[in-house]
This record gives sequence, C-alpha cells and structure tokens, in this order.
Amino acid sequence: MDTFSHTIRLSTGGNTDVFDITPFVRDALESSGLSDGIAVVSTVGSTSAITTCEYEPGLEKDLKDIFEKLVPRGGKYAHNSSWGGSDGNAHSHLRASLVGPSVTLIVENGRLLLGTWQQIIFIDFDNRPRERTIRVKLLGS
Amino acid sequence: MDTFSHTIRLSTGGNTDVFDITPFVRDALESSGLSDGIAVVSTVGSTSAITTCEYEPGLEKDLKDIFEKLVPRGGKYAHNSSWGGSDGNAHSHLRASLVGPSVTLIVENGRLLLGTWQQIIFIDFDNRPRERTIRVKLLGS
Amino acid sequence: MDTFSHTIRLSTGGNTDVFDITPFVRDALESSGLSDGIAVVSTVGSTSAITTCEYEPGLEKDLKDIFEKLVPRGGKYAHNSSWGGSDGNAHSHLRASLVGPSVTLIVENGRLLLGTWQQIIFIDFDNRPRERTIRVKLLGS
Repeated sequence: MDTFSHTIRLSTGGNTDVFDITPFVRDALESSGLSDGIAVVSTVGSTSAITTCEYEPGLEKDLKDIFEKLVPRGGKYAHNSSWGGSDGNAHSHLRASLVGPSVTLIVENGRLLLGTWQQIIFIDFDNRPRERTIRVKLLGS
Repeated sequence: MDTFSHTIRLSTGGNTDVFDITPFVRDALESSGLSDGIAVVSTVGSTSAITTCEYEPGLEKDLKDIFEKLVPRGGKYAHNSSWGGSDGNAHSHLRASLVGPSVTLIVENGRLLLGTWQQIIFIDFDNRPRERTIRVKLLGS
Repeated sequence: MDTFSHTIRLSTGGNTDVFDITPFVRDALESSGLSDGIAVVSTVGSTSAITTCEYEPGLEKDLKDIFEKLVPRGGKYAHNSSWGGSDGNAHSHLRASLVGPSVTLIVENGRLLLGTWQQIIFIDFDNRPRERTIRVKLLGS
C-alpha cells in the first residue's frame, strides 16, 4: 500500500463562497495511479469546511441562506470581542466546525465512489477573500 | 496492509428515514478478517448522510423533528426553482451536506471502536423512497 | 505501511464542555514515528463529538451558545420519554450526531496538516460530567 499527496490552491471571495473541487481530486487520483483505497480531502484553516453536495447555482445560494439563518453573521459572539474585536469572524468558525474540515471517500477501480449529483465542495466561511490550501491524501494500491 | 470492500443496499422511505447500519458494517468486518485498521462508511448520493447516534425510536423521531426545525422542508429554496422546479428536495441536499457523507471508525482486535449506545446511522433525507447504496472500505491488517 | 494506536482519556464537565486535544494527538504522532499518512481521531460515545476550531475562550462560549440555540436543552424530545424519562440528554445526542464522531487529518513530514488557528476539539454534549475515551489511529509509514 502506498500514499500519494496533492495540493489544491484556491482564491476565494470568503462569505460562504462554494467551490466544486471534485475535478481537482479526480486529477490527483488519476496522476497517482491509485486503483483501490481511500481519499482524504482536508482543508487547512479553521474558517473553511469540506462536505459533499450537488453543485449548482440554486443550491449554492441555498447554502449561503441556510448558514445565515442557522449561524447569522450579525449575531452576538464572544469571539468577536477577543483579539481586540478585530476579527469579526466568529460565525465563520462556528459554521466551519459544524460542517467539519475533511471528507474521506472510497476509491475503487481508480474512481471516486460518488453519486451522479454528488460533488465534493469546499466552503470558505471567512468574512473576507482568502488564498486557501486544500490537501488530498490517497492511501491504497 | 490490505483493503476490503463491502456494499450495503437499503430500500428507504426517504423523508429523514433513519437506519442502524452497524450490523452490516460488523458483518463486513468479520468477513474481512481485519484485526487492526480503519473502516470508512460512505453513502453514494447527495441527499443522504452517515453519522453515529443512539438508535432508538425516540431519537429517530427527534432527528426528524430537529432537521425539520433547522432546515424546513417547506422553506423557500433556489434549488427548487432549478431543473424546472421538478426536484423539490433542496432541504434534503442541505441537511445531507450539514451531516456529511461518511464516517471513519477505528478497528482494533477485530472490533469497531464504538460506545455501547453508539450506532452507525444512515439517514435518507430525500423527499421520496429510494434504493440506496452504501459502501464500506476496510484498511488494515 | 503500519498502524499505531493511542488512547486519550478526559474528565469532562459535560454540558458542551470543549477541549483542545491537538497536543495529545501530536504526542501520539511523535511517539509513533509516523512521517506520512493519516490520523483518525474518534470519540467512543454517542453524546460527544470531534471537529476542528480555533480554541480560545470566546469561541468556547460561542459554541455553547450556538448549540443551545440550534438544539436547545429544554426542547421537547421523544428520547427524554424513553427509558422511563431518566436520561434527559436527547439534545446531547442530536448535537453530537450533527457534528460527527471523528475527524481524519493528513500527516506529512511527521506533522499534522492543520492551520495556525485550527485545533482539534472534543466536545462533550452530555448533561453531566463524564469520563471519556478518545481513540487515535495512525496509518502510514
């Protein structure tokens, strides 16, 4: 069994910006030659998250709306009084912790096991544009 | 180190139908003979999710209720205007993305490390009955 | 490829008590000598969860507040009528299922790939103090 590493870099607008990163993970998988194993896709940073979803403009808007409803940007948060109140991104942290920093997917016959409408999405919850690094680790043979 | 694959198939009622899939994962583990490693349990499809919970009828009802409160079926969603408005399952996608498509558990001495009241649950959030495929990948020795 | 196991034990206060367990996972990684692979961190128990977050007192308070808003302790839950109504911790189960029982992180050059402000946090959602066991499994070489 072997491991293969890949790095994805994204320039985001923050503010619950949603990206379909499936093509990048597929490219990493093809380059590795891995046929059978798992793919761990993990974001580096505590105000962004990774999950799966159908990626289309309607759901991208719905994701923004539902997170604004569940964890509103304008809420009263203790974190926004820490560090001299300079951050203002408590909602970003809370949303990211709810969704989680990584997904682990199964690889068989050189393919990611995903549904037809199931894409790997990266969400940048921070309150400003960011340069982001996402890491992919493949384990298997 | 080796890998072992297993497929679980379920007929669900959709609408936040909850299943205890622990026995299927345990069977896969026993068949594999794996003693030490990890088990990745992943759903194929973007309107269903996997997590852990105590599996009993009270909590099954509570799960239905809490998701209806957090992401109501009757909410106004842009996805439900996409594809000619034929889908109507935006809430299913959003709930599934919140929970996540897979769990990764630890295997030791041929057993899944789970608490006594901790079962692996599959939730079908779609708005209609579905035939579902869940994949299990075991890595270890 | 090899596997390494480590156990973390915590005495918690329950009630959405939040712990930074990154140092324990780092210690396990250093002891293992693993350079390249993955780390699975998994809680044993259905009323606790693991995710990542910036660990600071403000966000610890914000986590308590947001879970109380989303899944209130005083809500009406069917689980609290099960088992003769003795448990009273339905909200603990629901919160734990939302966040999830484990995270999988990537290891490279002997280090966990985490952002500067990204810590691995354990949250005990139960409604009373608990003795907790968290398991770490490292796979790689």
